[in-house]
Amino acid sequence: MEQGWKTAVSKSSEQETLIRGYSIEELVGKKSFAETVYLILKGELPSKAEAVLIDAMLVSCVDHGINVPSVTAARIVLSAGNSFNTAVGAGILAIGEFHGGAIEQSAKFLSENREKSAADAVKQMRAEKKRIPGFGHKIYTSDPRTKRMLEIARENKFWGKTIDFALQVEKELEKQSGKKLCLNVDGCIAALITEMGFDYRAGKAFFIIARSAGICAHVLEEWQREKPFRRLDESETVYDGKAKRELK
Amino acid sequence: MEQGWKTAVSKSSEQETLIRGYSIEELVGKKSFAETVYLILKGELPSKAEAVLIDAMLVSCVDHGINVPSVTAARIVLSAGNSFNTAVGAGILAIGEFHGGAIEQSAKFLSENREKSAADAVKQMRAEKKRIPGFGHKIYTSDPRTKRMLEIARENKFWGKTIDFALQVEKELEKQSGKKLCLNVDGCIAALITEMGFDYRAGKAFFIIARSAGICAHVLEEWQREKPFRRLDESETVYDGKAKRELK
Amino acid sequence: MEQGWKTAVSKSSEQETLIRGYSIEELVGKKSFAETVYLILKGELPSKAEAVLIDAMLVSCVDHGINVPSVTAARIVLSAGNSFNTAVGAGILAIGEFHGGAIEQSAKFLSENREKSAADAVKQMRAEKKRIPGFGHKIYTSDPRTKRMLEIARENKFWGKTIDFALQVEKELEKQSGKKLCLNVDGCIAALITEMGFDYRAGKAFFIIARSAGICAHVLEEWQREKPFRRLDESETVYDGKAKRELK
Amino acid sequence: MEQGWKTAVSKSSEQETLIRGYSIEELVGKKSFAETVYLILKGELPSKAEAVLIDAMLVSCVDHGINVPSVTAARIVLSAGNSFNTAVGAGILAIGEFHGGAIEQSAKFLSENREKSAADAVKQMRAEKKRIPGFGHKIYTSDPRTKRMLEIARENKFWGKTIDFALQVEKELEKQSGKKLCLNVDGCIAALITEMGFDYRAGKAFFIIARSAGICAHVLEEWQREKPFRRLDESETVYDGKAKRELK
Repeated sequence: MEQGWKTAVSKSSEQETLIRGYSIEELVGKKSFAETVYLILKGELPSKAEAVLIDAMLVSCVDHGINVPSVTAARIVLSAGNSFNTAVGAGILAIGEFHGGAIEQSAKFLSENREKSAADAVKQMRAEKKRIPGFGHKIYTSDPRTKRMLEIARENKFWGKTIDFALQVEKELEKQSGKKLCLNVDGCIAALITEMGFDYRAGKAFFIIARSAGICAHVLEEWQREKPFRRLDESETVYDGKAKRELK
Repeated sequence: MEQGWKTAVSKSSEQETLIRGYSIEELVGKKSFAETVYLILKGELPSKAEAVLIDAMLVSCVDHGINVPSVTAARIVLSAGNSFNTAVGAGILAIGEFHGGAIEQSAKFLSENREKSAADAVKQMRAEKKRIPGFGHKIYTSDPRTKRMLEIARENKFWGKTIDFALQVEKELEKQSGKKLCLNVDGCIAALITEMGFDYRAGKAFFIIARSAGICAHVLEEWQREKPFRRLDESETVYDGKAKRELK
Repeated sequence: MEQGWKTAVSKSSEQETLIRGYSIEELVGKKSFAETVYLILKGELPSKAEAVLIDAMLVSCVDHGINVPSVTAARIVLSAGNSFNTAVGAGILAIGEFHGGAIEQSAKFLSENREKSAADAVKQMRAEKKRIPGFGHKIYTSDPRTKRMLEIARENKFWGKTIDFALQVEKELEKQSGKKLCLNVDGCIAALITEMGFDYRAGKAFFIIARSAGICAHVLEEWQREKPFRRLDESETVYDGKAKRELK
Repeated sequence: MEQGWKTAVSKSSEQETLIRGYSIEELVGKKSFAETVYLILKGELPSKAEAVLIDAMLVSCVDHGINVPSVTAARIVLSAGNSFNTAVGAGILAIGEFHGGAIEQSAKFLSENREKSAADAVKQMRAEKKRIPGFGHKIYTSDPRTKRMLEIARENKFWGKTIDFALQVEKELEKQSGKKLCLNVDGCIAALITEMGFDYRAGKAFFIIARSAGICAHVLEEWQREKPFRRLDESETVYDGKAKRELK
């Protein structure tokens, strides 16, 4: 490769593997997976409070039922006669702007705006007719998952400017729009990781790592319980194209 | 779909999400991600010892340097101008029979043979000229990661028949072949999850979940530090095909 | 890479690109895409008859309705907010053993058995309780696509030992099993490419190349006509797992 | 799915498969694959001239050496022990904004600007400090592939407003910037498909369909000629992260 392959993430030789400088054999048994996720994405080990919150985030994103695109896609791919990792890979592909993408978008908004007043940030987004990512929910006017996560943050004395800013945006949104657009779970995770100092570009990582477990569970279940091969039933599909015609 | 979409993994409605019967909001903050991984794949929560071992396994598989196929593929895909999840998905596709596949194969061998004597199991595999998956290492005659993992198992009083069987197979292999083929880290994880009662088909899941974190870290680094777009340099490639010829 | 990157497929430098020795600029406008597909997979240009048959095969595999796994998966992935190529890639992943895989399997059977008598080949497969890939159809006792393809082969005077063998296997299957298991379109394509001298490992290539066009058309339609984001409706899914329970 | 599955692309039942209204069995043997590609993406059959040009485009994009990301990714994935279609799928994922993406971007520019004068269109893009996609080449000041393609267009009397506009943009670019930024092959294909009336969103489709053949040829070669498993050699990689450190 013209650019060469350079990394600060890990070092592996026949003698040892270092994760951000720590021997993997030393991490094993001493650090949790949640702590290791923080370490490998950020470069340093988390504080106790941060470790608790990373665990909470990962658990909160682990699965959300069979109805979501990533699970449907993964199960279809296994069912057509493919390997476990091919199916999980297809599931990860179905994570996108509208499925798991909000954390990144919200973290971008928060990190770019938290130096402003919430009032100004909301005013500007409204002037540009942009939706503020991480706020609003189909049915909740107060997201119970956000409430739970912020409770854990408070109990562990993890708080700061970005979280305050996110909560002020929630209030400003109601004030300026007249509608209650609550800080949803994506926005809450975005606020927490931004507070921890993560780059917004890491936003999808937490969702993907967590959800890979849910996708694996569904792929395993498909393999264990279902016969190949899934296809839409004719009754589910509609053809609205050209009527039958002859080649001239 | 002709078969319908049936699941025992999770239930999600606008009101609540259950993971194997437990409300996700109750799990958040009370159970670690490692415990949740066990729960979602197996259907029940782990014992304390099992939870410690799952964490150890996930940490041990989190990353193994930039040299492995999954990382190379993921970084190339991001570098060509694709999204975070597309790149990670491509990385998961590169996990295969020769990269992360040994846990599943070894768990299959152990679960199908542990009722036999190790001597008979080894004899039969040798008669069929088959390699026993999970044993042998390029440089180690005793895999330090296996040693560490078994230490943790012992400290937590997690032991049993499958682990004993795996260690007897290691001895028999040396006896019957004259070569030291140590129980490697894949074989050790396979023995532990089989002991816990996991289906061998879950073997790749632990590797994929863990390694998704490593792949995410590499994709993030590619995005943060490298310019697009990676391609092999001409000096790295050799053309050994037909010399230039004319169409007739 | 330890092995280096060696290829006989193509050569590309800033000055020119050769496909199997031919300058791509010379091929453009002089050779059809079907001829180029044959060339790039096989190393030499096809005869006139072979070119006609490759075109016929590619057209016959181009699409098969919206119901198939590759199309469903691709459309779901686009709908979740992903790029065109990510969606098409997911569609290709859904091609598998049970969806497009039969050509490869049938070509393997034909190339490994065509030196035997059809009677012996069928007898042996039946003794091993194996289904012969490429024969049998859910509703046809004579596959009209096979009929059409063999007609084209005859018109173009492309015939030979492998095609004869395939038709004899069809007869033997009826004789030995009492059931009419017709040479289906996958088996017919397998016979034709084996006759042309292709390695059975190229079997999936023709299907993938052709079907990539159908998948692209569906992804384009999804993009043009549908709103994001597709998810299963609750009414389509059934939860048959643990009832709600409390953490202890 | 909440939205239902509606398509005008194709209709498939046990009795027949229609592609845009035409029976697939009638298309087979009568229409080339290039014509079928046009049909399935556009809804109608091409004129003779359009058919010739589609064939030319597909041939021109079929492959470009082993150095490109899609081929490297696909070969790595096969080499790690994965199936043919998983490897090709990974290759398609590596097509992205910087690899095959220019046709779509250029077609978007052309379709949005062709009603303006070329002078105005170029002025505006320069004012917004945007590069015009489809123009410029690392080494060519006149792209020979464009020359060849336009020659074929002229020979077949396929010409029109969009092609003229593209050539005027080339002139204006030189005039306004003082640099020769030639209409490259991506821009030329973009002009041709826009002239044919294709939506710019179909831009990646032609590249993907064509290149799927090249990727298949490389995956086949990897399977036939190479041993598993490719990984970067330590000599190719550099670790520039934290020095080894101890857990506290």
